[in-house]
Amino acid sequence: MPIPAPNLYPPFNIVRLSHVEYMVTDLAASRAFYVDTLGLQVTQEDDQRIYLRAMEERGHHCIVLVQADKAEVGVLGFKLFDDPDLDKAAEFFASRDLPVEWVDRPHMGRCLRTRDPWGIPLEFYVKMDRLEPIHQKYKLYNGVKPLRIDHFNMFSADVDASVAFYNDIGFRVTEYTADDESGKTWAAWMHRKGGVHDVAFTNGLGPRLHHTAFWVPTPLNIIDLLDLMSTTGYIDNIERGPGRHGISNAFFLYVRDPDGHRIEIYCSDYQTCDPDLEPIKWSLTDPQRQTLWGAAAPRSWFEEGSTFAGAETKPSALTAQPIIAP
Amino acid sequence: MPIPAPNLYPPFNIVRLSHVEYMVTDLAASRAFYVDTLGLQVTQEDDQRIYLRAMEERGHHCIVLVQADKAEVGVLGFKLFDDPDLDKAAEFFASRDLPVEWVDRPHMGRCLRTRDPWGIPLEFYVKMDRLEPIHQKYKLYNGVKPLRIDHFNMFSADVDASVAFYNDIGFRVTEYTADDESGKTWAAWMHRKGGVHDVAFTNGLGPRLHHTAFWVPTPLNIIDLLDLMSTTGYIDNIERGPGRHGISNAFFLYVRDPDGHRIEIYCSDYQTCDPDLEPIKWSLTDPQRQTLWGAAAPRSWFEEGSTFAGAETKPSALTAQPIIAP
Amino acid sequence: MPIPAPNLYPPFNIVRLSHVEYMVTDLAASRAFYVDTLGLQVTQEDDQRIYLRAMEERGHHCIVLVQADKAEVGVLGFKLFDDPDLDKAAEFFASRDLPVEWVDRPHMGRCLRTRDPWGIPLEFYVKMDRLEPIHQKYKLYNGVKPLRIDHFNMFSADVDASVAFYNDIGFRVTEYTADDESGKTWAAWMHRKGGVHDVAFTNGLGPRLHHTAFWVPTPLNIIDLLDLMSTTGYIDNIERGPGRHGISNAFFLYVRDPDGHRIEIYCSDYQTCDPDLEPIKWSLTDPQRQTLWGAAAPRSWFEEGSTFAGAETKPSALTAQPIIAP
Amino acid sequence: MPIPAPNLYPPFNIVRLSHVEYMVTDLAASRAFYVDTLGLQVTQEDDQRIYLRAMEERGHHCIVLVQADKAEVGVLGFKLFDDPDLDKAAEFFASRDLPVEWVDRPHMGRCLRTRDPWGIPLEFYVKMDRLEPIHQKYKLYNGVKPLRIDHFNMFSADVDASVAFYNDIGFRVTEYTADDESGKTWAAWMHRKGGVHDVAFTNGLGPRLHHTAFWVPTPLNIIDLLDLMSTTGYIDNIERGPGRHGISNAFFLYVRDPDGHRIEIYCSDYQTCDPDLEPIKWSLTDPQRQTLWGAAAPRSWFEEGSTFAGAETKPSALTAQPIIAP
Repeated sequence: MPIPAPNLYPPFNIVRLSHVEYMVTDLAASRAFYVDTLGLQVTQEDDQRIYLRAMEERGHHCIVLVQADKAEVGVLGFKLFDDPDLDKAAEFFASRDLPVEWVDRPHMGRCLRTRDPWGIPLEFYVKMDRLEPIHQKYKLYNGVKPLRIDHFNMFSADVDASVAFYNDIGFRVTEYTADDESGKTWAAWMHRKGGVHDVAFTNGLGPRLHHTAFWVPTPLNIIDLLDLMSTTGYIDNIERGPGRHGISNAFFLYVRDPDGHRIEIYCSDYQTCDPDLEPIKWSLTDPQRQTLWGAAAPRSWFEEGSTFAGAETKPSALTAQPIIAP
Repeated sequence: MPIPAPNLYPPFNIVRLSHVEYMVTDLAASRAFYVDTLGLQVTQEDDQRIYLRAMEERGHHCIVLVQADKAEVGVLGFKLFDDPDLDKAAEFFASRDLPVEWVDRPHMGRCLRTRDPWGIPLEFYVKMDRLEPIHQKYKLYNGVKPLRIDHFNMFSADVDASVAFYNDIGFRVTEYTADDESGKTWAAWMHRKGGVHDVAFTNGLGPRLHHTAFWVPTPLNIIDLLDLMSTTGYIDNIERGPGRHGISNAFFLYVRDPDGHRIEIYCSDYQTCDPDLEPIKWSLTDPQRQTLWGAAAPRSWFEEGSTFAGAETKPSALTAQPIIAP
Repeated sequence: MPIPAPNLYPPFNIVRLSHVEYMVTDLAASRAFYVDTLGLQVTQEDDQRIYLRAMEERGHHCIVLVQADKAEVGVLGFKLFDDPDLDKAAEFFASRDLPVEWVDRPHMGRCLRTRDPWGIPLEFYVKMDRLEPIHQKYKLYNGVKPLRIDHFNMFSADVDASVAFYNDIGFRVTEYTADDESGKTWAAWMHRKGGVHDVAFTNGLGPRLHHTAFWVPTPLNIIDLLDLMSTTGYIDNIERGPGRHGISNAFFLYVRDPDGHRIEIYCSDYQTCDPDLEPIKWSLTDPQRQTLWGAAAPRSWFEEGSTFAGAETKPSALTAQPIIAP
Repeated sequence: MPIPAPNLYPPFNIVRLSHVEYMVTDLAASRAFYVDTLGLQVTQEDDQRIYLRAMEERGHHCIVLVQADKAEVGVLGFKLFDDPDLDKAAEFFASRDLPVEWVDRPHMGRCLRTRDPWGIPLEFYVKMDRLEPIHQKYKLYNGVKPLRIDHFNMFSADVDASVAFYNDIGFRVTEYTADDESGKTWAAWMHRKGGVHDVAFTNGLGPRLHHTAFWVPTPLNIIDLLDLMSTTGYIDNIERGPGRHGISNAFFLYVRDPDGHRIEIYCSDYQTCDPDLEPIKWSLTDPQRQTLWGAAAPRSWFEEGSTFAGAETKPSALTAQPIIAP
């Protein structure tokens, strides 16, 4: 299907992606990974939960790690523009026969819990505790020196349908991959905040979270992390990269946390706030789509992902094959 | 005066700053500077005008160089969200007794020409010719490898009044400098597109354009430009830097074009799209405000600027003194 | 065999590796690669030969490209300390029953042509034309901005024997890979000029030249080259990398010229001038030896190389297997 | 006076500069500076002395901090090639009527203590305790991530005489500044190890140590240090930079330790091992000599330095004036 025209007047105003809740099976191991290795800052912790923020964020958290029996994703969080947007969002999801629930969440004001049509747990809020800036406290910087959460990438069993839904709520496509044979969309990148994406969808067993990405300013941050991980026992957690994506032009690295949740370190990006920005189309068979420099991604990168709590997965009908490293 | 609360529901929707028209006295000399040295790309030129864009921009131009007898600034351009915004903007400026004129501008659709209350010539549009992406044509990259226009910085004879006006049309303050003695605002940074600023105002003989800034990803771009300029006859065009501003946390360099128009090369920045982002206050007497590392700026940087065509300047009543290099 | 103790009092004083002569089948295609893409500077050229130097070199050339019917390596050149060293070198090679010939070479003074025991053509000289410094002519920098030739890496059918010979003439081992099973040396890095290597030997069908390396200061030079090559038709010339070697700690990229001659772009290195520097031993089965970050090299990297003019190759008796990408 | 021809056959073989002993008045404050801020690694410490090494060094120390009543420089250390060189050095200094003493120094083998003709305390050795490599222990890297000691820069009251003496013992001039009026040398850079310098001399009240320099690979290391120092209470310890020297082409930063000892962070450099390398001459009145980009150095940088224990200073007869920041 062709990419839909952007919905410039969505039913409610999503400012940006905000946070993700990861269920993890060994909180101490996750802390060593996210805090001591990636360099995220702890904003609160007890023996069940660790709240983290990146260096330029003033909201209370972008990741919540929750001790659990099973590694999965609790929820994806998004910030709305103002309080009426929360009610409009509730109305919208109700009108689509999707669950609507108002929940109490620590450090957050009114919070709407719902799911997308495929069961991805979502939460929307306007107010979250605001913290003092730390972006100029350079003594705190370590690991990959992550500046901010950048985007979520999800497996979808029907990317065209996912794009249509998220387009309806205002996400605009910046780049996409078409399967020339079937005419279907194999993957799409969609934004709210003016970068290449807040969310992306990739064809596959879905819904699952492919990765959460953090933004860093230069490829040297990524090289520093590679050097650190490869000499502190995390070599097997390095999955793919470094490289430059053709799509999005991003310099990237993919690493896996101790439970296998995938984290991208993402560098480059470009400004997309023009409402008339033309989406860039890539062919699934273009080897430079995945990596501008031509190296294929490993099979695990195409097949593995984190399930969402309470969402059943199903395979995609689209069986086109990307280029996988031998 | 205290910084006003942001106007989250402005009368019309400005997407971002867009372009500047520089009147220059020697078009060939300006071309050598902007194209061969800074690395901006020519999108059209004749013997009177050169249109330029930066590497990730798809709009037709971010700078227009116009051969003229006198070096000044023709207009500052801003992109609006949709067509009705143009009419709302016209209404707003008319309601403030400011000039409203619809003009024909090459490569642009409907275009509203007006002035702010101090005479700064402004133009607003929705559609500009869109060009093919070149951000992955790496062979074209040269000079400082500028990615996009980032912001305008203007001298104002009454910063509090300038902030109030631009706040009314939706620009939101991210950081500001207060003169503790008088209680007045000495400088302010205001954004629309989700970075630290689209426009900034600094106390001084106004209105004048202090500089136009271009965004680059790493300090090494700036060091490359310094090496290039200092060995190709442009050493006297280097005015200030490299350094890191306390305000905005930007790594910066200020250079002057052959007519003295000031260009900033700007690196770092941070995301500001949260509507509840708290402005950061700096004291005028904090030496780390100007430069985090403590070096003072030269006198020229505080005193020299480009006049706007048709706008009379007047001195500021606020005589507080910033820290100037001896 | 154990690595021999360094010969601190060699029979003649080699200062450093100096230059390589590549026979190429299409001089224009090679020029496009070495000059327009890598950024080496032409110091002289006609329709049969192109002489090149890197940005900080003052000697006349580090590469000579020679139009030929067959792509191979003409000679490896080394600079000696003083004129008597030339005669001592001649004496040494004669004493080993190796060929000794005094040849006229353009831009060079007295020049001794010989071969090592396996037929690698070598030339030694003291004086080469000296050119004006260009390292501060930043306008000339382009491509990967190569600063200097760094080392030669050769396939050897008997690395222990190669190490013994080059050790005799003063090269000192800095790092090496041992095949734990056979007790033989699989690869060795040996220096004269105070870095990790001027020459290296790797087990395989030999003698052949594995690659010539150029030094650049930061990984960003390498990323720039990757972006350039992948968007100017050279994507298939990218063979391996970017990555960091465990051995030598170098950040690397391997590319192939139009004839398949392999060029390494090499970054990092460390100072090795202490005569009591202890060689670092790596095990052939350590995956971090090849790439600190754990990625295996492609088969071509282990198997392909450039033959030397007039030298017959033979397979190695050592059949230990490095880790090859699947 | 003209620069002397290099002495290619010196009386003994100095491999490189090795270490400096700083007398400091508050060992804890110095530790906070050198270890926690610069990122040097402690190899041994007690309440009177701290031994430090940089990340790629295997010798036991490059700096010894010694608790003392007065801040000065205890000694400059140099590594010789072999044991006979020690005796040849003793002979040489005795022949010049300079003091010769064999001293016991912790972590070092035979050690010759002497002074140069102006009283600079020098020590020469061949063996120092060797430590395990840590250059790939990336978890240890912090601060400016210093890789190795690079050079000493000294004030001399007679630079021509200093150059002549150090030239006699094998240091070779790579670049120098001439006072065109008097014909005298104002400053000179001299090397042993194949970089721009191991030692340098600058006209002024001498002998005093101007600075000790540490090598880092990229300007970003220096920017990281500036950000760190300016936000951890060390802003007044930043004296000059960042900038690029015309001389040596180095990207530099000068900082002062808590006692005022000056440390340079030095990046770039180039290879100088060719015995026929032509020294580059700069004019004292060339503003790009000091800083390629044209910024003058502050007065303190020209006037302040660390005295050597037991050496009396005297003013220079050469009163030519460099360009000083107003």
